[in-house]
Amino acid sequence: MKNSIGNSVSVTIFGESHGSEIGVVLDGLAPGIKVSEEEIAGKLLLRRPSGSISTKRVEPDHFRIVSGVYNGYTTGTPVCILIPNENTRSRDYKDSRALARPGHADYTAYCKYHGFEDYRGGGHFSGRITAALVAAGSIALSALEGKGIRIGTHIARCAGIPDRDFSNLSEDLNVLSQSTFAVLDPDAAARMQEAVRQAADEGDSVGGILETAVTGLPAGVGEPWFDSMESMLSHALFSIPAVKGVEFGAGFAFADMKGSEANDSFAVRDKKIVTRTNHNGGINGGISNGMPVIFRCAVKPTPSIYKEQDTADFFTLTEKKILISGRHDPAIIHRARIVADCVTALVLCDLLTQRFGTDYLASKDPQN
Amino acid sequence: MKNSIGNSVSVTIFGESHGSEIGVVLDGLAPGIKVSEEEIAGKLLLRRPSGSISTKRVEPDHFRIVSGVYNGYTTGTPVCILIPNENTRSRDYKDSRALARPGHADYTAYCKYHGFEDYRGGGHFSGRITAALVAAGSIALSALEGKGIRIGTHIARCAGIPDRDFSNLSEDLNVLSQSTFAVLDPDAAARMQEAVRQAADEGDSVGGILETAVTGLPAGVGEPWFDSMESMLSHALFSIPAVKGVEFGAGFAFADMKGSEANDSFAVRDKKIVTRTNHNGGINGGISNGMPVIFRCAVKPTPSIYKEQDTADFFTLTEKKILISGRHDPAIIHRARIVADCVTALVLCDLLTQRFGTDYLASKDPQN
Amino acid sequence: MKNSIGNSVSVTIFGESHGSEIGVVLDGLAPGIKVSEEEIAGKLLLRRPSGSISTKRVEPDHFRIVSGVYNGYTTGTPVCILIPNENTRSRDYKDSRALARPGHADYTAYCKYHGFEDYRGGGHFSGRITAALVAAGSIALSALEGKGIRIGTHIARCAGIPDRDFSNLSEDLNVLSQSTFAVLDPDAAARMQEAVRQAADEGDSVGGILETAVTGLPAGVGEPWFDSMESMLSHALFSIPAVKGVEFGAGFAFADMKGSEANDSFAVRDKKIVTRTNHNGGINGGISNGMPVIFRCAVKPTPSIYKEQDTADFFTLTEKKILISGRHDPAIIHRARIVADCVTALVLCDLLTQRFGTDYLASKDPQN
Amino acid sequence: MKNSIGNSVSVTIFGESHGSEIGVVLDGLAPGIKVSEEEIAGKLLLRRPSGSISTKRVEPDHFRIVSGVYNGYTTGTPVCILIPNENTRSRDYKDSRALARPGHADYTAYCKYHGFEDYRGGGHFSGRITAALVAAGSIALSALEGKGIRIGTHIARCAGIPDRDFSNLSEDLNVLSQSTFAVLDPDAAARMQEAVRQAADEGDSVGGILETAVTGLPAGVGEPWFDSMESMLSHALFSIPAVKGVEFGAGFAFADMKGSEANDSFAVRDKKIVTRTNHNGGINGGISNGMPVIFRCAVKPTPSIYKEQDTADFFTLTEKKILISGRHDPAIIHRARIVADCVTALVLCDLLTQRFGTDYLASKDPQN
Repeated sequence: MKNSIGNSVSVTIFGESHGSEIGVVLDGLAPGIKVSEEEIAGKLLLRRPSGSISTKRVEPDHFRIVSGVYNGYTTGTPVCILIPNENTRSRDYKDSRALARPGHADYTAYCKYHGFEDYRGGGHFSGRITAALVAAGSIALSALEGKGIRIGTHIARCAGIPDRDFSNLSEDLNVLSQSTFAVLDPDAAARMQEAVRQAADEGDSVGGILETAVTGLPAGVGEPWFDSMESMLSHALFSIPAVKGVEFGAGFAFADMKGSEANDSFAVRDKKIVTRTNHNGGINGGISNGMPVIFRCAVKPTPSIYKEQDTADFFTLTEKKILISGRHDPAIIHRARIVADCVTALVLCDLLTQRFGTDYLASKDPQN
Repeated sequence: MKNSIGNSVSVTIFGESHGSEIGVVLDGLAPGIKVSEEEIAGKLLLRRPSGSISTKRVEPDHFRIVSGVYNGYTTGTPVCILIPNENTRSRDYKDSRALARPGHADYTAYCKYHGFEDYRGGGHFSGRITAALVAAGSIALSALEGKGIRIGTHIARCAGIPDRDFSNLSEDLNVLSQSTFAVLDPDAAARMQEAVRQAADEGDSVGGILETAVTGLPAGVGEPWFDSMESMLSHALFSIPAVKGVEFGAGFAFADMKGSEANDSFAVRDKKIVTRTNHNGGINGGISNGMPVIFRCAVKPTPSIYKEQDTADFFTLTEKKILISGRHDPAIIHRARIVADCVTALVLCDLLTQRFGTDYLASKDPQN
Repeated sequence: MKNSIGNSVSVTIFGESHGSEIGVVLDGLAPGIKVSEEEIAGKLLLRRPSGSISTKRVEPDHFRIVSGVYNGYTTGTPVCILIPNENTRSRDYKDSRALARPGHADYTAYCKYHGFEDYRGGGHFSGRITAALVAAGSIALSALEGKGIRIGTHIARCAGIPDRDFSNLSEDLNVLSQSTFAVLDPDAAARMQEAVRQAADEGDSVGGILETAVTGLPAGVGEPWFDSMESMLSHALFSIPAVKGVEFGAGFAFADMKGSEANDSFAVRDKKIVTRTNHNGGINGGISNGMPVIFRCAVKPTPSIYKEQDTADFFTLTEKKILISGRHDPAIIHRARIVADCVTALVLCDLLTQRFGTDYLASKDPQN
Repeated sequence: MKNSIGNSVSVTIFGESHGSEIGVVLDGLAPGIKVSEEEIAGKLLLRRPSGSISTKRVEPDHFRIVSGVYNGYTTGTPVCILIPNENTRSRDYKDSRALARPGHADYTAYCKYHGFEDYRGGGHFSGRITAALVAAGSIALSALEGKGIRIGTHIARCAGIPDRDFSNLSEDLNVLSQSTFAVLDPDAAARMQEAVRQAADEGDSVGGILETAVTGLPAGVGEPWFDSMESMLSHALFSIPAVKGVEFGAGFAFADMKGSEANDSFAVRDKKIVTRTNHNGGINGGISNGMPVIFRCAVKPTPSIYKEQDTADFFTLTEKKILISGRHDPAIIHRARIVADCVTALVLCDLLTQRFGTDYLASKDPQN
């Protein structure tokens, strides 16, 4: 199943940048999870472009819950959410039909779909589809919060500027939950925004690194081998457009460490097993160990830039120049952050439901 | 399905470090792929510990093909391969039953399996199981070679020492296919081996980075979103024990690049679309673009070291010291390299079979 | 994935009887399949209640293709189709909230969803959802027709009255494709309709048997064991509400046959292997043999009847009487027939795509 | 995944009639389920041919548990069981290489595997593989019994002779669990065996109907639509060779019933909701309702008979006669009965684990 992910809890996405709506089907989630339209709207707002460092295409994201929610709670049957595309300008794209935009999927889409693809605005490849993931994911986030599991992502690096590290996770996650530009150090935030603005002025774009923390996840979730926590999370995270790297705990820094430095020694605190360090990012042998799950995603710079680039026309197989017009983001990392949260929440709901059964995430009181 | 991966071509693994055999079932592969026991043995040899920089537990890997191969060719039905465990010493492990070895899965296994797990030598979590992946993967590698698709992995970094970059991929892959310590620069190889030996002398271990190249993969393979090439490959790669990071193309280096630097501009060579650079690692929008697919895996240092470490007894919830005995590797990266090749081959066989049908990987001539 | 079926080509359904819309996501189908809204409308019309032998709830089925179709062809990305519920009367259901209608899923839904289910009109269990299957299936039927594969279902039995057997399949399928009450023998059709009317007059309902034929399917499709043609088809067919039996070829009649009667002997016609009889329904060892695939589905009588029935209140655990009001069908078999066609088409598109690759069902000419 | 079934609990089979071993991998089952080799042997004995009404190929079924069981309990990781083929005579099959045995899969295997298939003794299509299903299924049966869920199958009909219906299920299941020829009415049993013997004398074979009852299954298991209890069970049951029909509850008899006869009215007994009749076979809307689950499988006569039959040579496309030699069963229904039990148990373990989590089937006491 190509546009679906998950086993016990699954997500299916559909839609194109310039279709009438994009949408998502979220299936397998427990009945009895409170669904707040305000919360969904709030998460969508975090994804929406805004201010001087985002695209001018601003979608109101007037989502609509079509199924699976009744009297404010999930029913246990598939939740479909639709989000209309209200601000599309198809004329922007027609001229460059067969000019492969560098860094984009125009050419690979053509190889795969033989020209039948809806190429307008990137079609089904558009980052716009992540709004559907956010809509579904915000229900998953609520479900997890009901079990004391929290997820937060900050921009650990943008345009070469680092944020400070996570320190007090509980407080840091509070800060991030309120933040529209999810950086822990306000000074770093200001410098990053300035760097994005400067790149925009130059018709260029920037990339960065997202770092996510999950707290409250019980030990014993995940599998050895193919369904390891790392495998399941990375599978989902790499489906976010522009993510080109995923690392857990010390990640690539492990390469230069000795075993004696890398190992997280165990200790006992409050009659619970903990680790003194967390280089393994809360995961041993593919299974959560009860410590915070920590990972980072590398986000490449937005490929749409306002500079002339070399390219080829894949109909005529001739080399051409391309100057992309339209409305684009000089950075998407600040918008991708909530997508990372949501995708993580969806994977964790799946793994927890597999582990503890369908009713685990349900609210306590059955409704008559 | 927890110990299975793949859709059209799937792999299921089983076994424990100290059981009678480990094994693998490879299903869905085309009929008519030549299976050479010598080739399988050759690949297993590359995974096997050897020399001064590996564990003293050396397994002869007398594998046995139980099903799915007839007259030297795959039949199209499930291929089961068994590899006996011949050199096990269970007594090494009993004393430390409830002492969580730092960096290992003892404690998480206990959380998940409630004490019923076979804990001897890591049980089902043992890196030994990767021998089964190699056995299956070497058939997948042969199948791909029949279509002109080649895979090779070098140790791009070990103990802080870098190998040279890939340059001429065709020649580099030739070199790697012959190499038991897969480093392109012989000088770097010598220094890495020396560093591993020194770590071993100190009772310590080292990590590194594997870099893999795939050439000859047709454009148009993979999917947007959840079944992106990156998602599918990382899902499999993160199932290799000790892999804690995966990045494609420029990967984490994208974070500090501008869009104008990161984009791979298109050109036309010999009437084919190519890119001038390959920062995206041969993948745009989750789909192969015909350029080499390039990715890197971060491999953490072997957690088994010969130094006293702090730990906890998870039966009694008391803090303890642990000094691991037994036979262990000071580095596994040189052995993991063939595992990366094999896992990659298995994923690509799956994706190609999905894309082009069951017979795509078959040899041409039906057999009567 | 609970509300999804299929591997290479998958279908996901969502919606409730009294929600705003029901819908379907069809994923994995080849790009370049012509999509005609008239054809979809035509198939939906065959499912729609009409005349004196159907419910008075008549839905116009103003479906809307939300994604995956561009310029009249499938794009290869997910096709979402929405069908509004326009003629709902929620007040019909409220009084009987906790009275389990015999033969319905009210009680089992309560056991599963703990009271959070949308119970109005059967909610997600409503036969209304089959409209979504028909919408998706009609595209699958078109795709198959492009390869010369035809599917047709007749009411082989209704209210105890048998239709004649299939004779000339090519002509019979032509007849069925035009027919709104899919019976081959006009006399039997008239008697069945009269029997349904009479049952309706008595406040009762009737069941029957659907028989489906598939012609033009190539030999060699399906799998031994778990993904046998019979397994895959029955899995989908049993998801049609009211289907309680599925048999292939001679089916239950095999029980009283000898091997010498049951075996289909092979012959050669026009340089092709055929069987002289077709007791095995075109399937040997789970794999199509090139003969027509033939199967039958038992359809139970509509459980909604206008007679007082004994039941229990599952909130209070007390026995009660129930007299179902609302608008219901005295038979659904004439409407279920197109659902059987569509479900069959969806399964076959999946199996053919697995076997021959993604492009197999595509139209020949790529579009630029 | 072609030779695998199940989501939370999965089964993968492999092997050929004349390979060294056949086998099975059972994955996802809870840790802590007691595994008794005697019980497995006992179930295999029920499947093994014996006496005058079975093939002369008698396999001792010296199975071997390769992984996933430690100290007599499941570990929670994959259980692999191997069963050697010890009594094979390959020479029986060579002459008829390209002669399609009527009712068998020789020709369809050729269409699918292009001649690379291991054709000896039916290869991977051989009923012998069901021994692997029985080995895995007997562990599943034990797991279910630990939760008070019992499964039993009787030969409801054989060679035209009916057994009596189930009456007192608890007693009937006791009788069946001891029985090697699973018929409730001893007189019917004797007449069936006589009929099989007579068919054997004539070089012919007979078919029949298996009826299975499941008691103790909690209400609320299964899904509406695609993962309905009927869909999941039939998917697995149709993978048993020779099964060509599956019906639940009244099944095909529903066709001639009125709704007022077919509906199972609800009542309250001992503060529990029950139904007064059980025409729906314990399933409403795809979900168990707490009543016994009842279904029947049509089993076609063994296709291997000792009479000359018409056939074709699929290499030369010429018509031929075939007289099958070798050792075959005049009936397999008495052997298939335990396969039906086992396949049912495997599906139910999967559904219960999905519903209630991984630990649901585990024994209570964790092991240290």
